[in-house]
Amino acid sequence: MNPLIDDRLIDLLLDLERVEELCAFPYFADHDRETFGLYVDACRRVGRQVLWPSYVATDAEPPALAEGRVRLHPKTKDGFHQVRELGVIAANRPEAFGGHQLPITVSTLAHAYLMAGNLSTAGLAWLTTGAAHLVEEFADEAVRTTFLEPMLEGRWTGTMALTEPHAGSSLGDLTTTATDAGDGTYRIRGAKIFISGGDHDAAENVVHLVLARIEGAPDGVKGISLFAVPQRRPTELGAGAADRELEPNDVHVTGLIHKIGWRGLPSLALGFGDEGDCRGWLVGRPHHGLRQMFQMMNEARIGVGVSAAATASVAYHEALAYARERTQGRALGSRSESEPVALVAHADVRRMLLRMKSIVDGSFALAATTARLADEAQHGPEAGRPRAAALLDLLTPITKTFPAEWGYEANVLAVQIHGGYGYTSEYVPEALMRDQKLNSIHEGTTQIQALDLLGRKVVAGGGAALGILKESIDETLAAAREAGVDEALPAALERALGEVAALTAALGTAGAQGDLEGMLGHGVDYLTLFAIVIVAWQHLRLATAAQRAGGESDFHRGLLQSARYWFATELPRVPMLARRCREDRSFVDLDPAWL
Amino acid sequence: MNPLIDDRLIDLLLDLERVEELCAFPYFADHDRETFGLYVDACRRVGRQVLWPSYVATDAEPPALAEGRVRLHPKTKDGFHQVRELGVIAANRPEAFGGHQLPITVSTLAHAYLMAGNLSTAGLAWLTTGAAHLVEEFADEAVRTTFLEPMLEGRWTGTMALTEPHAGSSLGDLTTTATDAGDGTYRIRGAKIFISGGDHDAAENVVHLVLARIEGAPDGVKGISLFAVPQRRPTELGAGAADRELEPNDVHVTGLIHKIGWRGLPSLALGFGDEGDCRGWLVGRPHHGLRQMFQMMNEARIGVGVSAAATASVAYHEALAYARERTQGRALGSRSESEPVALVAHADVRRMLLRMKSIVDGSFALAATTARLADEAQHGPEAGRPRAAALLDLLTPITKTFPAEWGYEANVLAVQIHGGYGYTSEYVPEALMRDQKLNSIHEGTTQIQALDLLGRKVVAGGGAALGILKESIDETLAAAREAGVDEALPAALERALGEVAALTAALGTAGAQGDLEGMLGHGVDYLTLFAIVIVAWQHLRLATAAQRAGGESDFHRGLLQSARYWFATELPRVPMLARRCREDRSFVDLDPAWL
Repeated sequence: MNPLIDDRLIDLLLDLERVEELCAFPYFADHDRETFGLYVDACRRVGRQVLWPSYVATDAEPPALAEGRVRLHPKTKDGFHQVRELGVIAANRPEAFGGHQLPITVSTLAHAYLMAGNLSTAGLAWLTTGAAHLVEEFADEAVRTTFLEPMLEGRWTGTMALTEPHAGSSLGDLTTTATDAGDGTYRIRGAKIFISGGDHDAAENVVHLVLARIEGAPDGVKGISLFAVPQRRPTELGAGAADRELEPNDVHVTGLIHKIGWRGLPSLALGFGDEGDCRGWLVGRPHHGLRQMFQMMNEARIGVGVSAAATASVAYHEALAYARERTQGRALGSRSESEPVALVAHADVRRMLLRMKSIVDGSFALAATTARLADEAQHGPEAGRPRAAALLDLLTPITKTFPAEWGYEANVLAVQIHGGYGYTSEYVPEALMRDQKLNSIHEGTTQIQALDLLGRKVVAGGGAALGILKESIDETLAAAREAGVDEALPAALERALGEVAALTAALGTAGAQGDLEGMLGHGVDYLTLFAIVIVAWQHLRLATAAQRAGGESDFHRGLLQSARYWFATELPRVPMLARRCREDRSFVDLDPAWL
Repeated sequence: MNPLIDDRLIDLLLDLERVEELCAFPYFADHDRETFGLYVDACRRVGRQVLWPSYVATDAEPPALAEGRVRLHPKTKDGFHQVRELGVIAANRPEAFGGHQLPITVSTLAHAYLMAGNLSTAGLAWLTTGAAHLVEEFADEAVRTTFLEPMLEGRWTGTMALTEPHAGSSLGDLTTTATDAGDGTYRIRGAKIFISGGDHDAAENVVHLVLARIEGAPDGVKGISLFAVPQRRPTELGAGAADRELEPNDVHVTGLIHKIGWRGLPSLALGFGDEGDCRGWLVGRPHHGLRQMFQMMNEARIGVGVSAAATASVAYHEALAYARERTQGRALGSRSESEPVALVAHADVRRMLLRMKSIVDGSFALAATTARLADEAQHGPEAGRPRAAALLDLLTPITKTFPAEWGYEANVLAVQIHGGYGYTSEYVPEALMRDQKLNSIHEGTTQIQALDLLGRKVVAGGGAALGILKESIDETLAAAREAGVDEALPAALERALGEVAALTAALGTAGAQGDLEGMLGHGVDYLTLFAIVIVAWQHLRLATAAQRAGGESDFHRGLLQSARYWFATELPRVPMLARRCREDRSFVDLDPAWL
């Protein structure tokens, strides 16, 4: 039985992030370490006992269209209902709205087990959380009282309806229109694509958070507004809408997209207002839709990172069990007549497993750190919030991208370790590999994250966030040295951090001098080296904890070895990547005609 | 319309390998550059006009079992028949057996178009070539006259039946038995798995080349013999067997494996002799089966490399066309109100495309060089054969692995460039990505190739092959300098080659002192750095040709830029990887309990 995620790691991360100290923040005052633990345990149980056993079936039999409506796999429906019962959707939301006021740090690590168990089923809840949060934060009271409660209860689920067929990453180009009907609603008309959970039969209704352009709005990103557009609409606004009759709202499924992963969760093309009768309620201020959406983006991107870490983790445990069980070949230097050994006896199999482990450990540790910052930025002492917010903003593109990109590599290695069997759908690693690929694409591609990091986050406030990062890393360096971690590790991290600072300054200067391609052309290389350093920091934190604990148990030795691997293998890439960012113009100067 | 492969590159490689000089070898004396060109053109046509248009359908509707027999997709059958008509199966074989005596250099580059068009359909021919070659080379005359002609005509196809469920890479552990029946045949009994093309309805018969153990044979790899085991057997041996009646030979399909790629080509579990009536004919000497098989291995592994290069190439052209057509986002520094630009206007999209191109160009160039060595080793002047054979042996694991591993990365980038659409089966990159993954697994995993390279090839003859490699690279360095290629390139390659030599000596010393894990533990890292240097050599050859040609056309500028990219991006990894091979023991010393 695949454990999905190593409980020892998650428990350690809850310690390292000092979650019990969060209870000193008024918002979390009703909690203590025990209630946190109960929630984590409940998610572990559902992830392992309900979701994971459903995974193969929901991947193999994706949702189908019947009479224009989407039918989910029965196991997806059942799984979603059990996830809903845990209170997942409203885990972080205020008690006033039926929420549990849990720290994001706790829910992030707890929900990882649900994502690991079945990404698609967990995704239905996760999407609803995001959509509901927009309603809670920006909708006026009438709209909020109508939509929020049924969404947080999961009776109605939510979607994010951003993408249009011609405009993927370029939201400024979207053309869906909203016409003021003069009755407090807008008539919505347009086509959206890749709408996850856009229709299904696991809930009573679906509320789309739709980006659209009010007639007469400015062009581009500054003319986009946000609307709540239910699939079936209430006849009047107000609390209890979910208990009253609903009527059709002219939202239609126009296509079911055949995704290669996350196959339990339907991705749809939707038509809004084809019959001129689709009503939407404005959420927030006109023309502020994109800005509002981006205020929720940190949480969505941390969510992607955690789902990516979870998907890599499941594959790691699958490969580890296989490598321990399956005998194949002989130890080096043994004769072919000797007994076969387990795969794990081969050094290269251990290389692949240790690489996977270091990616998984680093991903979860980073997600925990980033989630902690989100809690501090929202609910911590006022004075510390700007600092936490700045570091959160800086780390978010890494927290999203590192697990997606390196995690994919881990998923590929799991297939490789399974050999010929890994290349078949009789074994699960290939499905996890397919799932993982989405994470470098949705919620902002890796390319978008790179531009966000280098073009926005590191230069914001004159580079203030980098200074805050340095202080945080310095604390870790001091702690590592105090704990007696091999000095080679903190010394290497300190050096790498200096290289990041120098490179950032050099690229910033290029940008300030108007050489935008010289600054941003190597954005993905910059993100890569930045991520390597950030994850080295996380490994040093884990190694310090292991060292403090004596470093003798299997778990602690594993953490120390994982850190040692990361510092030997990934960190030396930093100066090389930095040189590439400074010097290589091979593709920046490339004329597309030469391709 | 996807061109599959850039004709300009293939034509240049035919020039660079001086194929017309091959006609001075007696075996190729009936050919000239024109007959080579005609063959290449014919394969281009079938690849583009017949196979590629069938690809999506044969991927989407894999073969099915009906009454214990496999039914191929009609387009696979038709495609195979047209491939067969080209004379592909016997392209390199002697005219005496109905072959065309074409150089491997020519057929390798020509067949790349067939593999690019539809890997599965081409695979059916390719497998038959390999199996027929074993019969031609090792079978006695009675067996050869029976099986060879129908196989080379493609009326009967062939398989390689090596793998058993418990023994993947460890052929020494196989347990299929062969009992001498005293009538010139053996009774075969056992189970094989992952037998590509093991049953189908596109030919009249299937001949399995089966590895089995004659009763009383030694344990391990030294007790394995090779047998020709037809699915339906002739009642007597001799020429014309395919025109006479055949009878069932007790070979049964026991399972259809659900592969994630190469889906047009069935992969089967087969039972031999379940009813005690399966006859096999010994091919070659008893207990020499594995050695015989390995004599064919170079060609099979070059074939894998070419299929991997082809699969990456198709994805590259798919992504390039998409990036030129699809508009998305704005140029750096432009306002969101300006017109959207093509994807290729974004530096990072060009980075991905140039990376793909450099992988594809390097892969084909390496395959051409290796194929040329195979021609020289088999048919060149006697005196030069050992030298060509030594270099061929050295380069084969790289020619197999580089396109498989880096090519996979190229295939992943094609999905990334397609964004959300790339994540759907409505677009073809995801299917190509699935196809590519097999190439790091079959015909010896990347791990096996690494052990072959470092544990066998570089140390053979006291490191003689490395010396020959150095001489070949020195010729390229001199030519590059003479042509006026930027001196930074030859200087960097020279330095990197020195690092390979020094590292190899250090690892060899460790091995000689009994530290086998110290020597071989980083085998995959060693293979990686070795491959980077070899491909840098190939890029320098291409850049030299481009420079000689004036370097002004789009094609030549593309080659120069591709080389510049490789030297800026990949070659700097060499010292880092070398240090890792020497110093890092993180996974070598890892106790599996720590995972």
